Amino acid sequence: MKKIVVIGAGAAGAKAASKAKRLNPKNHVEIFTQSSETSVSLCGLPYYIEGTVKDINDLIIRTPEEFLKNGIPVYTNYKLNKIIPEKNCVIVNDNPVFYDELILALGARVNIPNIENVNLNNVFSLRSLKEGIEIREKMLESKTVLLIGGGYIAIELMQAFVANGLNVSLIEHNHGLLKDFDDEMSDIIKDSVENRCKDKVKLHFNKKVIKFTSDEEGNFKSAITQDGLEIFADFCILSTGIKPNVEIARDAGIKLGVSGAIYVDNKMRTSYKNIYACGDCAQKYCIITKKPTYLGLGTIANKEGRIAGINAVGEGQYEFFDGILSSSITSFFEYTFSKTGLSEKRASELSKEINIEPISATVTKKDKAGYMPNSNNMTIKLVADKRSGELIGAQAIGCASVIQRINTVTSLLKTKAAVDDLLDLDLPYAPPFSGSVDPILTAAYQLKDKLRS
Amino acid sequence: MKKIVVIGAGAAGAKAASKAKRLNPKNHVEIFTQSSETSVSLCGLPYYIEGTVKDINDLIIRTPEEFLKNGIPVYTNYKLNKIIPEKNCVIVNDNPVFYDELILALGARVNIPNIENVNLNNVFSLRSLKEGIEIREKMLESKTVLLIGGGYIAIELMQAFVANGLNVSLIEHNHGLLKDFDDEMSDIIKDSVENRCKDKVKLHFNKKVIKFTSDEEGNFKSAITQDGLEIFADFCILSTGIKPNVEIARDAGIKLGVSGAIYVDNKMRTSYKNIYACGDCAQKYCIITKKPTYLGLGTIANKEGRIAGINAVGEGQYEFFDGILSSSITSFFEYTFSKTGLSEKRASELSKEINIEPISATVTKKDKAGYMPNSNNMTIKLVADKRSGELIGAQAIGCASVIQRINTVTSLLKTKAAVDDLLDLDLPYAPPFSGSVDPILTAAYQLKDKLRS
Repeated sequence: MKKIVVIGAGAAGAKAASKAKRLNPKNHVEIFTQSSETSVSLCGLPYYIEGTVKDINDLIIRTPEEFLKNGIPVYTNYKLNKIIPEKNCVIVNDNPVFYDELILALGARVNIPNIENVNLNNVFSLRSLKEGIEIREKMLESKTVLLIGGGYIAIELMQAFVANGLNVSLIEHNHGLLKDFDDEMSDIIKDSVENRCKDKVKLHFNKKVIKFTSDEEGNFKSAITQDGLEIFADFCILSTGIKPNVEIARDAGIKLGVSGAIYVDNKMRTSYKNIYACGDCAQKYCIITKKPTYLGLGTIANKEGRIAGINAVGEGQYEFFDGILSSSITSFFEYTFSKTGLSEKRASELSKEINIEPISATVTKKDKAGYMPNSNNMTIKLVADKRSGELIGAQAIGCASVIQRINTVTSLLKTKAAVDDLLDLDLPYAPPFSGSVDPILTAAYQLKDKLRS
Repeated sequence: MKKIVVIGAGAAGAKAASKAKRLNPKNHVEIFTQSSETSVSLCGLPYYIEGTVKDINDLIIRTPEEFLKNGIPVYTNYKLNKIIPEKNCVIVNDNPVFYDELILALGARVNIPNIENVNLNNVFSLRSLKEGIEIREKMLESKTVLLIGGGYIAIELMQAFVANGLNVSLIEHNHGLLKDFDDEMSDIIKDSVENRCKDKVKLHFNKKVIKFTSDEEGNFKSAITQDGLEIFADFCILSTGIKPNVEIARDAGIKLGVSGAIYVDNKMRTSYKNIYACGDCAQKYCIITKKPTYLGLGTIANKEGRIAGINAVGEGQYEFFDGILSSSITSFFEYTFSKTGLSEKRASELSKEINIEPISATVTKKDKAGYMPNSNNMTIKLVADKRSGELIGAQAIGCASVIQRINTVTSLLKTKAAVDDLLDLDLPYAPPFSGSVDPILTAAYQLKDKLRS
């Protein structure tokens, strides 16, 4: 019997606690969270704001009562004050709690940019149900909104706002949307968004917001960029990324990784053998480069939580987390954007360091048999290492079915497969689902020609 | 410079010829086909019959004129009479044609069942544009149809007929639809079809048709089964599988494989080093079992044609065909059925022979985040070998998005990946596309538990 204390009840904490309890019901497993909710799907918030998800409570995957039913008490509104590894003790709401194994699922918070007056009324970020409700309420009484940032959440919120009749301005300091895609793919994403919603969306790139202005009551009025552009809107969303919650762990002497997140080994152990970290507070490793990286996603949190839970229980059963591929997907109405592994840009940056020579092939082709009336163009880019012949990444833009292609490559990246493995891959085919030569195979054939030359 | 003669202009022949010409435009590449058309997508015929594809000419991927434009003359309506390997010669329309390399893409024909009066009027099979046109014309003046066979084409035609208001009867000698799925999955497929079209579709299993009856003009009137059931219909479709066209090759001394199709090595060479075979006339190999098998699919024909074309050209560039996974997909209105690799049934049959111990896990779960209003149940079954921990197959039933899961497993089977590789696979996720724990991962977790126990 062990006492396992989990700090945090997001995807990682919830999964770790559940797994640990299920593996050995004799274990005492307790969750402490500073939130009043447990196991919330933050990824669902844009769809609540849009109105697709009607009841925000649907985003609560598991309530504290449900955890308790499974033998896991959850202490909500409990703030973590301190970790004392030497004493196997955490201080929560100023009270000591002792543990045999500690699982840190501390999550992340919004990366608030350095903007003058950033704390005005009607400036929102999106990291909780409460903020989701506030944004939806504000949206319903507004005509214009300004989004700061051009990443995944920004695109999903842009759809929500356009669908609700708002005019959307977006300011991104980089030179395009979804900058983890290669530039020419990011350009197609930009064009897709602008073509879909010409009159409702205005995108501004390469601009840095330095100041917000307000009315007399302290309500957001406009954003002013470094180069003097002023954009007015009824409200503003900071969609400027996240940073891991690491301060209390760091102050306790728990090692941080080069990414700034908590260092973990492949058992999800921190620098203390009986302290685990998982989810948005923990450092990630890229399967392809073997290098530390950082990315906060619920899917990864789930997997890491599972591993942390299993290994905290121990009892001879250990599992290892192999790392991530930074796979992602998002959509703007019927347009879908998905990627996995390294972009060509990123691979080029790393080429000397990890000894690769990136090459790529990009194909635009119908996603179904060309004669099917609902077939649509899909653009797919494959990236490989010319030296080893191994695939290292893929990006795709098209309809929802881009995910079937990216999933395919995700599996191949995981097993370090070569371009050759994709060439004769026996993918299922029928005219409503793909072409008899799938776009991804066409891209692989082109890549093969480049490998040969 | 070489003279490369290709017999057959279906997917395999068309691809082989095009590839051979493109690799070295100095080669003389000629196609002979007994058909009047080239490069036809037979898979599209059910959608033409349904009315989804309006113009049957859309199913012609490339015309003889287009081949000629690329420097490949096509001799249509040329029957292959004989192959004389010793003289590097084929006889077509009673004339000799000499070759350096010969590529046989002889295709397959319908497996006509042993039924009395099988050649009546209004009894159709579906292997050409002409038959597609005839079936559509007949359908438009009919109220009832009888399908014999319960495979992929039967399901697609059933949809076409139901969509056009017909009442459909189906007789299958086996005990369910799509019998390459495991029995319990096949049962779900049957239930899906019956639920979707209760009043329009009547399925009869475990029944063998022994006789057709006709009216005075020799038109099909009814089918009578061994156990005395008589089913009347305005017309009848034989959807009873295919068999490879091998007779002329066999008579020339070209070796056949145990599957009955033409033996080929992994370069697509027959027992004669300068005679290649590809597509529906050639034997296949299962990547998992390493055993010969047979399956006629356009996707495989395309890949084999490519390999045959490359290797016939030679010039130091050889490619190998690794084999097939018997991946397949079809749909009945919104229901989609897809599989890859071995079923549990098939794996059990082979367990001693190939030394595996099949285990499986089946999960029914929402295909998207559960709170998304358009999420639907998906049932996914994973099969693994308990001894090696390797995945050996997957089957899925749900909406169109089953293909994204089956594609994922297809890649893993190709690289002989383990269940463990699927457990922490970093699949892209957003609520409209999957759950934060994808159904396929849930199935993998259950399989992992069984591997452990």
